[in-house]
Amino acid sequence: MNKTDLIEAIVLEKAARGLTWEGIAAAIGMSPVWTTSVCLGMNSAPETAAKALVELLELPSTAVAALMAYPTKSWEQAVPQDPLVYRLYEIVGVYGTTMKELIHEKCGDGIMSAIDFTMTIDKEDNPRGDRVIVTMDGKFLPYKQW
Amino acid sequence: MNKTDLIEAIVLEKAARGLTWEGIAAAIGMSPVWTTSVCLGMNSAPETAAKALVELLELPSTAVAALMAYPTKSWEQAVPQDPLVYRLYEIVGVYGTTMKELIHEKCGDGIMSAIDFTMTIDKEDNPRGDRVIVTMDGKFLPYKQW
Amino acid sequence: MNKTDLIEAIVLEKAARGLTWEGIAAAIGMSPVWTTSVCLGMNSAPETAAKALVELLELPSTAVAALMAYPTKSWEQAVPQDPLVYRLYEIVGVYGTTMKELIHEKCGDGIMSAIDFTMTIDKEDNPRGDRVIVTMDGKFLPYKQW
Amino acid sequence: MNKTDLIEAIVLEKAARGLTWEGIAAAIGMSPVWTTSVCLGMNSAPETAAKALVELLELPSTAVAALMAYPTKSWEQAVPQDPLVYRLYEIVGVYGTTMKELIHEKCGDGIMSAIDFTMTIDKEDNPRGDRVIVTMDGKFLPYKQW
Amino acid sequence: MNKTDLIEAIVLEKAARGLTWEGIAAAIGMSPVWTTSVCLGMNSAPETAAKALVELLELPSTAVAALMAYPTKSWEQAVPQDPLVYRLYEIVGVYGTTMKELIHEKCGDGIMSAIDFTMTIDKEDNPRGDRVIVTMDGKFLPYKQW
Amino acid sequence: MNKTDLIEAIVLEKAARGLTWEGIAAAIGMSPVWTTSVCLGMNSAPETAAKALVELLELPSTAVAALMAYPTKSWEQAVPQDPLVYRLYEIVGVYGTTMKELIHEKCGDGIMSAIDFTMTIDKEDNPRGDRVIVTMDGKFLPYKQW
Amino acid sequence: MNKTDLIEAIVLEKAARGLTWEGIAAAIGMSPVWTTSVCLGMNSAPETAAKALVELLELPSTAVAALMAYPTKSWEQAVPQDPLVYRLYEIVGVYGTTMKELIHEKCGDGIMSAIDFTMTIDKEDNPRGDRVIVTMDGKFLPYKQW
Amino acid sequence: MNKTDLIEAIVLEKAARGLTWEGIAAAIGMSPVWTTSVCLGMNSAPETAAKALVELLELPSTAVAALMAYPTKSWEQAVPQDPLVYRLYEIVGVYGTTMKELIHEKCGDGIMSAIDFTMTIDKEDNPRGDRVIVTMDGKFLPYKQW
Amino acid sequence: MNKTDLIEAIVLEKAARGLTWEGIAAAIGMSPVWTTSVCLGMNSAPETAAKALVELLELPSTAVAALMAYPTKSWEQAVPQDPLVYRLYEIVGVYGTTMKELIHEKCGDGIMSAIDFTMTIDKEDNPRGDRVIVTMDGKFLPYKQW
Amino acid sequence: MNKTDLIEAIVLEKAARGLTWEGIAAAIGMSPVWTTSVCLGMNSAPETAAKALVELLELPSTAVAALMAYPTKSWEQAVPQDPLVYRLYEIVGVYGTTMKELIHEKCGDGIMSAIDFTMTIDKEDNPRGDRVIVTMDGKFLPYKQW
Repeated sequence: MNKTDLIEAIVLEKAARGLTWEGIAAAIGMSPVWTTSVCLGMNSAPETAAKALVELLELPSTAVAALMAYPTKSWEQAVPQDPLVYRLYEIVGVYGTTMKELIHEKCGDGIMSAIDFTMTIDKEDNPRGDRVIVTMDGKFLPYKQW
Repeated sequence: MNKTDLIEAIVLEKAARGLTWEGIAAAIGMSPVWTTSVCLGMNSAPETAAKALVELLELPSTAVAALMAYPTKSWEQAVPQDPLVYRLYEIVGVYGTTMKELIHEKCGDGIMSAIDFTMTIDKEDNPRGDRVIVTMDGKFLPYKQW
Repeated sequence: MNKTDLIEAIVLEKAARGLTWEGIAAAIGMSPVWTTSVCLGMNSAPETAAKALVELLELPSTAVAALMAYPTKSWEQAVPQDPLVYRLYEIVGVYGTTMKELIHEKCGDGIMSAIDFTMTIDKEDNPRGDRVIVTMDGKFLPYKQW
Repeated sequence: MNKTDLIEAIVLEKAARGLTWEGIAAAIGMSPVWTTSVCLGMNSAPETAAKALVELLELPSTAVAALMAYPTKSWEQAVPQDPLVYRLYEIVGVYGTTMKELIHEKCGDGIMSAIDFTMTIDKEDNPRGDRVIVTMDGKFLPYKQW
Repeated sequence: MNKTDLIEAIVLEKAARGLTWEGIAAAIGMSPVWTTSVCLGMNSAPETAAKALVELLELPSTAVAALMAYPTKSWEQAVPQDPLVYRLYEIVGVYGTTMKELIHEKCGDGIMSAIDFTMTIDKEDNPRGDRVIVTMDGKFLPYKQW
Repeated sequence: MNKTDLIEAIVLEKAARGLTWEGIAAAIGMSPVWTTSVCLGMNSAPETAAKALVELLELPSTAVAALMAYPTKSWEQAVPQDPLVYRLYEIVGVYGTTMKELIHEKCGDGIMSAIDFTMTIDKEDNPRGDRVIVTMDGKFLPYKQW
Repeated sequence: MNKTDLIEAIVLEKAARGLTWEGIAAAIGMSPVWTTSVCLGMNSAPETAAKALVELLELPSTAVAALMAYPTKSWEQAVPQDPLVYRLYEIVGVYGTTMKELIHEKCGDGIMSAIDFTMTIDKEDNPRGDRVIVTMDGKFLPYKQW
Repeated sequence: MNKTDLIEAIVLEKAARGLTWEGIAAAIGMSPVWTTSVCLGMNSAPETAAKALVELLELPSTAVAALMAYPTKSWEQAVPQDPLVYRLYEIVGVYGTTMKELIHEKCGDGIMSAIDFTMTIDKEDNPRGDRVIVTMDGKFLPYKQW
Repeated sequence: MNKTDLIEAIVLEKAARGLTWEGIAAAIGMSPVWTTSVCLGMNSAPETAAKALVELLELPSTAVAALMAYPTKSWEQAVPQDPLVYRLYEIVGVYGTTMKELIHEKCGDGIMSAIDFTMTIDKEDNPRGDRVIVTMDGKFLPYKQW
Repeated sequence: MNKTDLIEAIVLEKAARGLTWEGIAAAIGMSPVWTTSVCLGMNSAPETAAKALVELLELPSTAVAALMAYPTKSWEQAVPQDPLVYRLYEIVGVYGTTMKELIHEKCGDGIMSAIDFTMTIDKEDNPRGDRVIVTMDGKFLPYKQW
């Protein structure tokens, strides 16, 4: 079972059971963002989580190895087109230099890691229109001088 | 005075005075991300903030209009190259579909606005390596059905 | 049933019944542009509209969920090639800066939403050549200052 | 005087006089969209309108020829980046096939001209948020069969 | 029957019958360029021509609708690679500005339509090497001023 | 004097003298398309024509060498944006395969040369709208078999 | 039988028989480069050569027409990636302007034809490392002046 | 003196003296292709050749270092547009796979070097049209197995 | 058996046997990098190594020829997206000019061969985080002067 | 003094003093790769190193701040063209998947950092042709699971 078959199977079983990503995440004891990214083939799962997922969704046993396989991450469009994803791209375009200035100002020359990295997504009820709160948390890595 | 001259002048005066973006933001009573983006020409300032900035940095009076002008936002590279900004782009690539799934799950069909939008950037001290915390807060806009 | 199968089924049934998009829209009580975009997989339908469409076109019952699914919007060509669609792209190229100037002049710094957005398409009979009238109606979103 | 110098001069004189594009258009008796596009170098003006503009803005007399010159229309980014213009591009991407279906359904095989074309831009006051109304009016051109 | 199947069927039947595009065009009473473009899926045929083609090539009856369907025109390579087609692209590149100057000089500000447009292709025998004569005939469309 | 300076000088002198490209071509006894392409730096002139041009437009004597220099032909946009030039590109896209079929049918395997090539551009008065007639005449070059 | 099937069949039969391209070329009395390009679908064969090839490789009789069909030439990568082909691309990049200068110096304004063109590829034994000798022979085509 | 200034100076002095690239090459005792590529900034010269060139063209003494500097080779267009250079690119596209097959057949798995590489360009008089003969000679480099 | 089928078969057999690339390399007596690249279709194997691999993994006998076939090397993304591979691309972007300076300083004008080239990859245990050590070893090739 | 002026000044002073990058690195007690990258504007220097460089090369005192400024890293060509740099890009293309397999095999799911990263470049004398040895040393960063 490869990652493509795995994703299809997960999406199918999730719909058939009326589950949510948050529910699946809670059931296996991991966070919603990480769990969803594993189910969409963008991260590998450790054995415990893989087995929990397979049991929960009654996937074939070959799914354990597929969940544990290290993915080759890729995305189809260098500039994304789906409006929800494009808005994130636009934020990087518009605020990228601002974020660079402020991260450098606080931490020095280096980057925020996208590997040693976690994220949460929340909804904030608001009478003037609900809001989406995205929190990214990445390790600061200073450039090496040698 | 156009935006390019404005940015150059601000960066120069900021360096000459040994100011930080956070310090400038505090002085004009606005947030650091928004203030920095205005100073880098990526947002327009209302008159009060524009005048406060001009006074603080002793910019020429024509800078008020330049700060208030509505910018044409653009970025040079469709796929950014600077490692700090690329990591943000990579996060959109790797986690874009995950974020789409979770925002839809919580809020329905729609997007997180990049216009009715605020952001903060914080540093979290951590003995195993400091961390950067980016918090994005955007209004959820449901697709219209008509 | 995924969106691709859905679109194919709708187009087939529409042709078999000799229906028009306008006729389908009238039958389900929604506008022609929105209805067509739903049938081409570019918008999701609420349950009532989805069920009305399935009944009208005698689609399989799994089509209800497919119509209600939130689509990932995309288009094949960054610069469109079909002459009808290219002319729209050309209008954005030629008149984009003009539209930016006039929208800013009337409403201030912000954008016209493509999400909280409706459109109508009409034909105007004219002895010197009929004309197409496209009316776009989008919410003005001012940039947040924080 | 070439188009680039012309545009710069117009923008300067407009700002110095505190004029609006709508005001300029009214003064020369043409529409705001067309007038703005001429002033941004995207259309040529007939002699009367060119002279009226030069008089109104007290431009040098060589500006008459520059306004009357037939422009080479171009835009810098195949996929626009400024959020206001990108939203228009996104509308073409998301609704392009829908518009193609409906224009063909109403008028047959052909296109909406972007040359024999006019546009208006209006603001509609609305307690739940003002709206921008864009109306495009283009001649339908049927494909020749020979 | 979609356009792709249609084209394949036509090419096959044409070869099986030893017909030429010129012969097919003559048989249905239309021009060779238009007829070929219809058979390659780049134009739609009116009912009479569609039925004549179907009869001539003994295509299945569903081919009538396929011939009459309004095509979505597209081409695979933004910059064509086949040497014959590239030479045409090169002519547009090398002589495009010259053609713009001369069409403007003769007709004013506007374009040559590619929709209200016909073309013929002829061979001229020549002892020093035969020549290809391409004649394009498009309606001049002046830019609207409003 | 390089090609860029040459073109600028020619355009200036042409405007100052109220000349047309057709008039210039007639004065030096060459065709309008070739003459315009030489003046826009897309072809080199033989000595007689170069000297005639320099005399007619009273260009500096260094312009003779500049007119005779073999140009490096290039164009800025792989996909042209000016509507007049784009329509020509679109014709190549839409009718390229048709032209390939018909040229092969008449002449065999080979191409129409863009080097051993001439072109004329004419206006045809027409009560239903004037028409532009473009005639391309290129040597047929058969592929070598060896 | 289309070109893709043809190529696959030829490659298979060549391997099965342990033939070389040079051997095939010698057997049909044509050059190795031309013969290989025909077998890879990049050139069309005249009837005699096509029949000889079909006989030699015991291809199905429909292969004669496939070999004689005029190909649509294309290549997958605008910038080739295979190191052997990239080196040829690099030579064009590094030495293209040099070749332009020297061909113009020897022959005047014009090009080396890629259509009326032949090529040979040889190996030269050399104690310090064998060498590849590529000889291109193309007709010089002068630009037409008219 | 950088490479850009160097090239400009050489081209100027060459024209002023009525020299040819072949003449310059003969005078410094090197081949025309290599000499031209050095003068166009695409190769570095050893000291003797650099000094001979400077003396011959009476260049400033700083030109010796500029000629000896190791260039950063680049070309403006990934797909060249000048017709002479494009034909070379087209040859790589059309015959690239053929050349790969034949070089592998003669020499095994490896490439023809573009670094340990020489080239000559000759004109062959021919009553049916002169021909350009390009001879490339590159070291065969076998892939290392380790 | 083509390269794609070969790679799939190897990956399957490797997983089924619980082998590592290092283990496979050791078993056939070649280096891990070269062996892996052969198994991923990026290099050809000599007969001995091919037979050893086929025997070790119990591949079908046609795999010997597939392993010995000279591959057409290619990669899907001009700018890689998988984070591990992108970091290597970024190193070339950030340090490419530095590497050019230092290789030229040590060896003169020329390049490091990617053909006569070997590589090793090692892990270095480190209490502050393990490290990856990549060692590239390529023949220096000086530019030919002729 | 910005980075561009800084680089130019350093290159000039280095040449004037006949220094090498290795010599400069030794003088300031840092490694050659890091020192060169700082001097080419691709890394920032800590104060001590910046001052040592300024003193060694007798740069203006404003160069200290320029050397310490955090650079925005970028490179002009997504696919490099200079042959030396292209070979490095080709290595990433050809061996990227191999390196991914082996790093994962040794270290698990994660990447080699390009930030916590050092490199050395050495020349190895070899009678059959000198060799370039590039050693990259990057921290292994495992993907976070949360």
